[in-house]
Amino acid sequence: MSEAATTLDGWYGLHDFRKMDWTSWKQLTSDERTAAINEFQQFLKKLNDVQDQDQGSHSFYSIVGQKADFVLFILRPTMEELNDLENEFNKLTIADYTVPTYSYVSVVELGSYGSKESDEDPYENPYVRSRLYPKLPKSKHICFYPMDKKREGNDNWYMLSMEDRKKLMYDHGMIGRQYAGKIKQIISGSVGFDDWEWGVTLYADDVLQFKKIVYEMRFDETSARYGEFGAFYVGNLLEDEDLPKFLHV
Amino acid sequence: MSEAATTLDGWYGLHDFRKMDWTSWKQLTSDERTAAINEFQQFLKKLNDVQDQDQGSHSFYSIVGQKADFVLFILRPTMEELNDLENEFNKLTIADYTVPTYSYVSVVELGSYGSKESDEDPYENPYVRSRLYPKLPKSKHICFYPMDKKREGNDNWYMLSMEDRKKLMYDHGMIGRQYAGKIKQIISGSVGFDDWEWGVTLYADDVLQFKKIVYEMRFDETSARYGEFGAFYVGNLLEDEDLPKFLHV
Amino acid sequence: MSEAATTLDGWYGLHDFRKMDWTSWKQLTSDERTAAINEFQQFLKKLNDVQDQDQGSHSFYSIVGQKADFVLFILRPTMEELNDLENEFNKLTIADYTVPTYSYVSVVELGSYGSKESDEDPYENPYVRSRLYPKLPKSKHICFYPMDKKREGNDNWYMLSMEDRKKLMYDHGMIGRQYAGKIKQIISGSVGFDDWEWGVTLYADDVLQFKKIVYEMRFDETSARYGEFGAFYVGNLLEDEDLPKFLHV
Amino acid sequence: MSEAATTLDGWYGLHDFRKMDWTSWKQLTSDERTAAINEFQQFLKKLNDVQDQDQGSHSFYSIVGQKADFVLFILRPTMEELNDLENEFNKLTIADYTVPTYSYVSVVELGSYGSKESDEDPYENPYVRSRLYPKLPKSKHICFYPMDKKREGNDNWYMLSMEDRKKLMYDHGMIGRQYAGKIKQIISGSVGFDDWEWGVTLYADDVLQFKKIVYEMRFDETSARYGEFGAFYVGNLLEDEDLPKFLHV
Amino acid sequence: MSEAATTLDGWYGLHDFRKMDWTSWKQLTSDERTAAINEFQQFLKKLNDVQDQDQGSHSFYSIVGQKADFVLFILRPTMEELNDLENEFNKLTIADYTVPTYSYVSVVELGSYGSKESDEDPYENPYVRSRLYPKLPKSKHICFYPMDKKREGNDNWYMLSMEDRKKLMYDHGMIGRQYAGKIKQIISGSVGFDDWEWGVTLYADDVLQFKKIVYEMRFDETSARYGEFGAFYVGNLLEDEDLPKFLHV
Repeated sequence: MSEAATTLDGWYGLHDFRKMDWTSWKQLTSDERTAAINEFQQFLKKLNDVQDQDQGSHSFYSIVGQKADFVLFILRPTMEELNDLENEFNKLTIADYTVPTYSYVSVVELGSYGSKESDEDPYENPYVRSRLYPKLPKSKHICFYPMDKKREGNDNWYMLSMEDRKKLMYDHGMIGRQYAGKIKQIISGSVGFDDWEWGVTLYADDVLQFKKIVYEMRFDETSARYGEFGAFYVGNLLEDEDLPKFLHV
Repeated sequence: MSEAATTLDGWYGLHDFRKMDWTSWKQLTSDERTAAINEFQQFLKKLNDVQDQDQGSHSFYSIVGQKADFVLFILRPTMEELNDLENEFNKLTIADYTVPTYSYVSVVELGSYGSKESDEDPYENPYVRSRLYPKLPKSKHICFYPMDKKREGNDNWYMLSMEDRKKLMYDHGMIGRQYAGKIKQIISGSVGFDDWEWGVTLYADDVLQFKKIVYEMRFDETSARYGEFGAFYVGNLLEDEDLPKFLHV
Repeated sequence: MSEAATTLDGWYGLHDFRKMDWTSWKQLTSDERTAAINEFQQFLKKLNDVQDQDQGSHSFYSIVGQKADFVLFILRPTMEELNDLENEFNKLTIADYTVPTYSYVSVVELGSYGSKESDEDPYENPYVRSRLYPKLPKSKHICFYPMDKKREGNDNWYMLSMEDRKKLMYDHGMIGRQYAGKIKQIISGSVGFDDWEWGVTLYADDVLQFKKIVYEMRFDETSARYGEFGAFYVGNLLEDEDLPKFLHV
Repeated sequence: MSEAATTLDGWYGLHDFRKMDWTSWKQLTSDERTAAINEFQQFLKKLNDVQDQDQGSHSFYSIVGQKADFVLFILRPTMEELNDLENEFNKLTIADYTVPTYSYVSVVELGSYGSKESDEDPYENPYVRSRLYPKLPKSKHICFYPMDKKREGNDNWYMLSMEDRKKLMYDHGMIGRQYAGKIKQIISGSVGFDDWEWGVTLYADDVLQFKKIVYEMRFDETSARYGEFGAFYVGNLLEDEDLPKFLHV
Repeated sequence: MSEAATTLDGWYGLHDFRKMDWTSWKQLTSDERTAAINEFQQFLKKLNDVQDQDQGSHSFYSIVGQKADFVLFILRPTMEELNDLENEFNKLTIADYTVPTYSYVSVVELGSYGSKESDEDPYENPYVRSRLYPKLPKSKHICFYPMDKKREGNDNWYMLSMEDRKKLMYDHGMIGRQYAGKIKQIISGSVGFDDWEWGVTLYADDVLQFKKIVYEMRFDETSARYGEFGAFYVGNLLEDEDLPKFLHV
């Protein structure tokens, strides 16, 4: 009876969270560390080149707290490219001094709730394309969390009618709109790819906006009754040129 | 009162997910790595021989994200053979450079909901045999997840009447049929063998189909009210001849 | 108001699941490995001697999948003996090449639901004694899982009347009887000893019977509404004389 | 509206569960092991001296199964003393050959349900003092588990009236009384100190009594509807003089 | 319909829990340990200087039990400063002898329930400032736990009206007031920053007050029906000058 909302799907994404193994890293000689950093920067430069050619995009942020030291979030047109980059990273020297702590596999998605019918191929629409194949911003802060829609007793999102879900998502979206200009949001779907249904990646120059939007939305019925949330990660922009300082011991 | 659906059971299956210990692997000499890769390829060749003789089948895929680097999914007529192969793998040199991250023990199964009564021995039916003793496809992508039918309060699959379950499974199956040609699905039962009731292994050349089918089914009452899902793994075909490149450091 | 069922309690049991640390094991010389295997076989021989004198019993099976490489399930008249054997095993050389992955502490028990009143001391009844102090079979396969009776909302086993529980257990037992001859079952109670209320150890020559009985029972109200299950382990008989081959690298 | 029961609070307690790292322990020379054992025994002797002076008490038991090899349960008048002893233990040589597996921080408590009003300072009452500042027994067996009172839907202990809780606790206590002489029980509160609300430490010469009391209580409404239980640990008395044998390899 | 309460937000906070790796620490020479301690004390001295200038604040406590050996709780005006300090700590020698066990990222917050409307900028109010940018006390004991407001079935905090929440929070606050002078409390919000919605840090000279306040509040409807709690950590003040003794082996 109930219909799934259709989605538009863009680039595939891999969030790769890592801790530094500082103890081992310190045991290298200064020259060895410099070589490892240079090699890592070359890798990041290649990512930048791909981004400059609009063939993908990526974010590189440090993470606050013990969950990770940094996250590399990479977008690419295919799962194969994500896998290749992941393996390429693992073969870098720096990787031997990191410990993987969490990763997330998903695909950038646009939900169709409330979209108007049209004959246009949405994948040709420039606005849609900018959302599905985004150039990730260089905001000062990043926030990532995975989420599900609940299926418990009377709070079962997937048993609601399309109409009810549409209404709820509309109200939910209205809250989001109030944060336009303050927060940039990437929604990526991960049903069939990873353990939660969606990943949410937020960018802001004012880190407090992450708290404000998530808290305000929690009172909205869509989140209050139907939202389930995984771990939250928050971090600070790590410019490639700041990498030597970040890794200096 | 309520009756269990009867099942037809085929080959036993072991999904073996492993991460590479890249740091240790890099410490080998190039010759040592080459020898280890050759030995691994010999092992895979033996699996291919068994598959060529229709005595079993297997899939070998890389996995995207930190959950694993690759999965070897092996089907065999007996649990003993699975155990022997698992032990044989562990005794290979390459195994010393892997870390087991997840495994799943199950048996390929066909549910009987909606099947017609007949005098025929279903195990002699060629179509049934092709489903119970399948030659696993070489699609570009694999997706694996374990699942349960829920037993919580009013959402208790096992308290439904056979008639209700049959109706729900029929509707559920109708969604699956829409993906014929796009997705090949292996359902394996694991009640009594592993921690979830079923394992689902999907194959597709278009990885997005995994997301589409699982998402669409989630709105179907069978999944919406009664489905519980474990971790999802997604990966890319790893041809034996690509192994040296995959493992090259 | 509600009364606990009384139980008859027999030998104490310890299930000890272990993985091999194959990488370290391979680093021993062939002579060192042979010595370790011989010492392990001496230990098993001592267990056999105790079993021959009806002072205890044990099972030794390999386990399929990554959860363990083998399980040693030991029954003894006292907790002290179990602890001594556990420590004795840990002091063997082979133990240094194993990783403990799970254990379970319980006592073989017979529930009293449906038992007839009598003046006889049940502990003197030969049939009861054979159940409480069993000689564990050498079936081809083993299955182990721990379980609880649920206490959630309206599905609360411990709030049912004795009469209701008795009726449910009777129906439950009738399913079990259909598997007489195919499956031998050891129920051990672990309330106050370990994290679940019972451990279930099944033995069968046809491994598929484990799936059939657990699946069929799941539709029975006792399991459907009131059963909660832990991890499932399945394995193959490991004869003492096959140990050298199992451990050969 | 609802009132918390007041409690009387005695000595602070730390349960410290440890596994032996047998592999490393075996690598010491016999002399090194003897020295480490002697040092450990000196530490235990100091604990005994404190106990003899009624300034604290402690229990030392081996644990059955893989959860731990032994538990040291220490009672002291202040948190600082517990912390000092924990650190002192960590600085012993033996500590380097142990792996911490679980700990529990609590304070011995007497609930006030059903206690009569009086002008007497309960902390001066000799019976109360013997309960709050107990000399832990040297029974053959120990059992430990943490627990909560449930707060789920209609089964919410903390929303019951004081009168209802008092009635339930009275019935609950009546079961406990039947085990007087067979089981000695220490209830310690851990709200604000550790992850569960209470720790329960039982002592008995007949280990089966642990199973009997916990099982019987589970049918009592207080446990059946409102009890939530953590992991259970069971063990055997480890006399200081048996330590060399326990640790002999 | 329902409105989120607005909050005032102050300094960002990082709780960093660590265990000592005593075994490795003992392997250093006495001189190496002294140097590491001196370096650590220099780091703490820098934190003290910042605190003396009201540019931040911090607490340093030992933790009782195996969850951690100490916690460093740092408050700073920006997430970047927290991240810098975390990285600076990781680059100290002492860090190589610690194991991170838990961390928490949050921002000191004041809820607005019950606050009166006024034209005043609350961030200019001296009382508010003292709460948002607190100088953390040097009480003898610390207690930390994270918490959520529940969203389950009929117990869904976020579906309550503002009026209901205001009433509940008022009653809840009245309990807290009874502990004025005995307990100092820092509430920090972590929605969007870490895995729970709030972190609660309590300070008291009498450690028993932690148990009393948390237990009493648990009977209050706000906690009884709507509170969900994470792990609890309790510890003792660790004065900088006591560090050498604490770390002496």
